[in-house]
Amino acid sequence: MTNGLTFDDIRAAAARLDGVAHHTPVVTSHAIDGLVGASVFGKAENLQRAGAFKFRGAYNRISHLSPDERERGVCAWSSGNHAQAVALAARVVGTSAVILMPEDAPASKRAATEGYGADVRTYDRYRENREELAAALAAETGRVAVPPYDDHRIMAGQGTAALELLQDVSDLDTLLVPMSGGGLMAGCGVAARALNPRIELVGVEPAAGNDTKQSLVAGERIRIAVPRTIADGLQVEIPGELTFEINRRQVDDVCLVDDEQIVAAMQLLFERAKTVVEPSGATAFAALLSDPSRFAGRRVGVLLSGGNVGTAQFSDLMQTYVN
Amino acid sequence: MTNGLTFDDIRAAAARLDGVAHHTPVVTSHAIDGLVGASVFGKAENLQRAGAFKFRGAYNRISHLSPDERERGVCAWSSGNHAQAVALAARVVGTSAVILMPEDAPASKRAATEGYGADVRTYDRYRENREELAAALAAETGRVAVPPYDDHRIMAGQGTAALELLQDVSDLDTLLVPMSGGGLMAGCGVAARALNPRIELVGVEPAAGNDTKQSLVAGERIRIAVPRTIADGLQVEIPGELTFEINRRQVDDVCLVDDEQIVAAMQLLFERAKTVVEPSGATAFAALLSDPSRFAGRRVGVLLSGGNVGTAQFSDLMQTYVN
Repeated sequence: MTNGLTFDDIRAAAARLDGVAHHTPVVTSHAIDGLVGASVFGKAENLQRAGAFKFRGAYNRISHLSPDERERGVCAWSSGNHAQAVALAARVVGTSAVILMPEDAPASKRAATEGYGADVRTYDRYRENREELAAALAAETGRVAVPPYDDHRIMAGQGTAALELLQDVSDLDTLLVPMSGGGLMAGCGVAARALNPRIELVGVEPAAGNDTKQSLVAGERIRIAVPRTIADGLQVEIPGELTFEINRRQVDDVCLVDDEQIVAAMQLLFERAKTVVEPSGATAFAALLSDPSRFAGRRVGVLLSGGNVGTAQFSDLMQTYVN
Repeated sequence: MTNGLTFDDIRAAAARLDGVAHHTPVVTSHAIDGLVGASVFGKAENLQRAGAFKFRGAYNRISHLSPDERERGVCAWSSGNHAQAVALAARVVGTSAVILMPEDAPASKRAATEGYGADVRTYDRYRENREELAAALAAETGRVAVPPYDDHRIMAGQGTAALELLQDVSDLDTLLVPMSGGGLMAGCGVAARALNPRIELVGVEPAAGNDTKQSLVAGERIRIAVPRTIADGLQVEIPGELTFEINRRQVDDVCLVDDEQIVAAMQLLFERAKTVVEPSGATAFAALLSDPSRFAGRRVGVLLSGGNVGTAQFSDLMQTYVN
């Protein structure tokens, strides 16, 4: 039942990340607990290096490069948090990174990635296939491709977020985790179940992008159209192959949240917890808010998975969705 | 040279606050350090109970009530963070609070204060004098008036913020503190100097409300017109009497910041540190941003004194001041 990902893998990743990644704090709020009627423990991965949990997996993968591979460097494709995570992890390890980004990626994301020292190359997302471009780049240059989730070392690194949370907070009843490709849930679920075999594992997806929920019901990976949601980190069309093998055996339930619920979650975290969480990162908390009776009286761990949202985007979201 | 406020007072306050107030975290950011060319340590009082450092002083004062006084309760006037702090501290101590607020105070501030169990009474700020109203209320009801700053137990409680910061971070060169009535600086300065006699103490005021700077130059308390600034917690007309006696002997310098610099500081804290700081709470950090050469290469402690800003106000400020 290990599907190739074991608790030992996650403990090994934690040892590698010690002193490199932040051991992020746990956010609690009397006001929020009162509102939802549960004891809520937010794992503040918005305060992780490069602003999201992604750094944990990227560093764990890149730190395993052989000396030869380190010489040749890494490559990745992403317009989001994975780009910044790979760029920063490569710099910390002392290797080089090439990141493929769509031409129309926000200038701020490109600047942040370049700020970590990566070589950013753009492609036309309507005419070119990013996986093929990345594979060609890897083949030509010998760079090691760093995937965003479908890799055991990525999953193991990402699982250290739950390892820390369960070490810091005892007796959690439920763990709520945003699901995109499924790497965060794969790693976190394995870690959480190892420490607490009875913990309930609940994934959260945007209602418009319920590929994991559909896939779990069908018992096989289902592909959907690119979802339209403000949760830009969760716009995948299909669960990962390796992640799904793990998650289909461990996930108890998947909750769906719409954009309005995500913005309400961002607002409450801003006003009550004074913390900045991006749309994708607020989905797990949104699930708790949108169905509090489902979690009433429970001790609930919530992955606040990222905080990379600018003030302009934040203000737009508030004005669009909040009265 | 103690002016009635000693380090022992602050240590006694810290003992009282232990387990009641939050020992707030220290915010650091590689990105911010790189931008300003200094090592910045933000004392996150925006994460304090009731959202600001004010709780430290209010609780320290109210916890000293005699059994008789506790029976009769407390009163205070404030439209801002002091109101919420007194309301919460009264509830924690187990006494009652009446808070005088102007009729036109924001509904959210009133709701928050009532949410902590206080009895809020309104007055017409154009026709009635709040100090006189509060004095009459105290005389009629026997309630103990809790002033916002000009009281040694308030100052001692507020000084525990710097006590914690200097215990957590060694070898600070400079401490930047927002100045309104001067209570936070009075307490923090005494604590900081006791732990590090060579530390530089720099106050920060809105450029439009430079009563402390003028008073320090003149060597006596100068009254100004009510300042127009977005830093609504710093709109005092004159330094406190007791606070000024302390601050005139210990403050090395006062920096002034304008509204645009305050909003830039709020934006940077949001985007890089993922933390929500209200205008008044961001002034000390704004001083660092607006004159980085003044602090270059130094280890600078910065009081992030409060985080009570709603998403609507935050969005308005960003759209008004940021391109």
